Amino acid sequence: MWKFRDVISILDFNREDLEHLFSMTDRILERLFDVGSLLDGKIVATAFIEPSTRTRLSFETAAKRLGAEVINLEPHISSMAKGESLTDTLRMLDDYADLIVIRSPYEGSAKHAADVCEHPVINGGDGTQHHPTQAMIDLYTVRRLKGRIDGLEFGVVGDLKYGRAAASFLYGLTRFNVKRIWLISPEPLSPRPELMDRLKSLGVDIMKTENLEEAVEGVDILYVTRIQKERFPDPAEYEKVRGSYVITRKIISRAREGLKVLHPLPRVDELSHDVDDTPYQAYFIQAKFGVPVRMALISLILGAF
Amino acid sequence: MWKFRDVISILDFNREDLEHLFSMTDRILERLFDVGSLLDGKIVATAFIEPSTRTRLSFETAAKRLGAEVINLEPHISSMAKGESLTDTLRMLDDYADLIVIRSPYEGSAKHAADVCEHPVINGGDGTQHHPTQAMIDLYTVRRLKGRIDGLEFGVVGDLKYGRAAASFLYGLTRFNVKRIWLISPEPLSPRPELMDRLKSLGVDIMKTENLEEAVEGVDILYVTRIQKERFPDPAEYEKVRGSYVITRKIISRAREGLKVLHPLPRVDELSHDVDDTPYQAYFIQAKFGVPVRMALISLILGAF
Amino acid sequence: MWKFRDVISILDFNREDLEHLFSMTDRILERLFDVGSLLDGKIVATAFIEPSTRTRLSFETAAKRLGAEVINLEPHISSMAKGESLTDTLRMLDDYADLIVIRSPYEGSAKHAADVCEHPVINGGDGTQHHPTQAMIDLYTVRRLKGRIDGLEFGVVGDLKYGRAAASFLYGLTRFNVKRIWLISPEPLSPRPELMDRLKSLGVDIMKTENLEEAVEGVDILYVTRIQKERFPDPAEYEKVRGSYVITRKIISRAREGLKVLHPLPRVDELSHDVDDTPYQAYFIQAKFGVPVRMALISLILGAF
Repeated sequence: MWKFRDVISILDFNREDLEHLFSMTDRILERLFDVGSLLDGKIVATAFIEPSTRTRLSFETAAKRLGAEVINLEPHISSMAKGESLTDTLRMLDDYADLIVIRSPYEGSAKHAADVCEHPVINGGDGTQHHPTQAMIDLYTVRRLKGRIDGLEFGVVGDLKYGRAAASFLYGLTRFNVKRIWLISPEPLSPRPELMDRLKSLGVDIMKTENLEEAVEGVDILYVTRIQKERFPDPAEYEKVRGSYVITRKIISRAREGLKVLHPLPRVDELSHDVDDTPYQAYFIQAKFGVPVRMALISLILGAF
Repeated sequence: MWKFRDVISILDFNREDLEHLFSMTDRILERLFDVGSLLDGKIVATAFIEPSTRTRLSFETAAKRLGAEVINLEPHISSMAKGESLTDTLRMLDDYADLIVIRSPYEGSAKHAADVCEHPVINGGDGTQHHPTQAMIDLYTVRRLKGRIDGLEFGVVGDLKYGRAAASFLYGLTRFNVKRIWLISPEPLSPRPELMDRLKSLGVDIMKTENLEEAVEGVDILYVTRIQKERFPDPAEYEKVRGSYVITRKIISRAREGLKVLHPLPRVDELSHDVDDTPYQAYFIQAKFGVPVRMALISLILGAF
Repeated sequence: MWKFRDVISILDFNREDLEHLFSMTDRILERLFDVGSLLDGKIVATAFIEPSTRTRLSFETAAKRLGAEVINLEPHISSMAKGESLTDTLRMLDDYADLIVIRSPYEGSAKHAADVCEHPVINGGDGTQHHPTQAMIDLYTVRRLKGRIDGLEFGVVGDLKYGRAAASFLYGLTRFNVKRIWLISPEPLSPRPELMDRLKSLGVDIMKTENLEEAVEGVDILYVTRIQKERFPDPAEYEKVRGSYVITRKIISRAREGLKVLHPLPRVDELSHDVDDTPYQAYFIQAKFGVPVRMALISLILGAF
């Protein structure tokens, strides 16, 4: 059910798909099979036309740990700098590689790539709403730490309008029966209407608040995101909200026992380093799942299972 | 006859050499042998001191599909930025790698590299006249699409003075018995005297014209090239000729049946996207041959056969 | 005795450790065992937050020649550009890789990395005093060319204050019983007190001079280093000493027979190209040992032996 599929949005996948991915990840982590040469002879291309470290390197690591080779488009020194269209550039990668991972600042780039390319395309984050593989990692982390996603109470804090990790996580939660979701953001950074509509239509109990303290007390999972300067059309808008919500050890001390704090990283100053040594910290665990979830994903798509 | 040879100019190779390369490419495409670990343990270095995507990535892909590993010199962050000479940099690569692929804006860089390095050197394009591996791909494409190169009528359009892909293709045609070559360019972008002399000395029927329409009607192969801004010593000269020859579906409709349009890519605006869906389009096919021709080339040079 | 160790300073290793490394290098060069798949499935990460060609590519080549894969942090397009701390970035690499090689302009970066990372860390050069793997290569070169390090007379010329290759080489010499060391530099570029103290405390016979000619006549090994502009806090200080000591064929002609000139490369103008063809030249031989010494090092640390 995963073979040769494109991965554009977390909503491309139903609950059963995601459960299958998670159990494949479990098996990789438990080393139930030797995957070191599963993708021998395969080539994965990365086309990151927006800066990234974590996503690019974790895809590269995942591919290499499966025995595949990786080629990287370097847009700043590429033929795109000579004026080549993205479409022609993607066609080239499609000629060379068995799988293309794209990241772009523009909405719809991954869908466009999937239309152009014969080989499967994975969205490594495009525009402001979709970063499906991050959502897969985040959901997997919750499932590992809590044993389930259903029935839990979530807080999602930060930029819920321009932040694609937060939006994708929220879309992903709609595949499960969660108890309640707190949306914690300054009003200008509230989720877009289409995301709100989807959350409401599924009957999820939604609480919107600008009050971080209140929300922290009730949730099982607090998902924190960076307020990303580069997403703001207007820098002045950014300066107004910057630093609105900083998660510190002090704030987190009001939480219920068992609260886990997630963050897709990188963090700047919205998540204090004094949380690192508390039992609430789960973002470094989450980070460790980046490679195995992507290993499971790539091997499922390239049909190794 | 290919083992450990340098590849500096297409003229380094006679017709027999080229036929051997082409039949090796055929066999790779037909998967007549398993090449995935042919070059296990070999290292290919790329030294691209001029921006490139297609050439660099296709060499990298070719090497990796043969089981070799690749290291990339990154000149903008390299010791050349600290003032190291190209010669010392090349010596270093020669210490690390089994084969060096160089691209440079300067005439003679590849020859210089071959003189410095003990390992074989492949010219991935230097200066304005030589891009031998592109010519190999182009000739192979003609042979595949038409079954032969001999006896055909060619049109080569664009910048025939500064464009190394066009110049190399023309030099390559002199290894075969072609019927006629139309040179279609504005006068300031005519081929250099040494190329004209060579073409004439071989008794090829040469037609020079500035009239694209006239030429299109008679040729079997139309080879289109970008007019490359970066090759012009004087930007004003570029602005004068820019857009002189734009290949569109309308212009191409005058062609004889069976015309095939080639382009080494990337294209900017000299080749309209409305040609993409016509039966004349052959440039995406040509692009697909980039990797297998280079696989054949590398495996012949590194002595795998 | 090498397994899973960090490599921060050459002083982390005693004479026995170094001899073990050297004999392992001998065996790799003599191809006494097949190492091409020794590190299959391992991943080496490079984190070079300062430009480098030689060190990065030779580590990359060494890892690949052992069968390992390599991932490269590219700091100029990484999340560090988004404001991520070095600590968080290192944690990420530690999640992905089995070994981390770091280069940094800041003193103590490698030690910090070793504290943060669970996997072994190799210092590829940080700050102005430590470049331990370069010192290993340099000492190995002397041992190969002279059969021994003990009892020889060394001259070290250039920037002995800011130049980490020179400082590390001097620290490395203290592990052996050398006869005499000439320190040849303009006064403002003399070794730091802690290095001088160490040299003196070991009872090495130290001669300080600004007179290159005098020193050249007496030494067995002349170790030349670039005066590195980027190390100078004050550009004016650089301009004053630049070009103070240029090694030419003429100067070197005063040397005793058997003198060998070493240089960690890249060179700019402190080492004339007219020395290249003399019997004194040993820097290209030294350069050739970069990969095999690093192969021995990586395979010892990753526990392949």
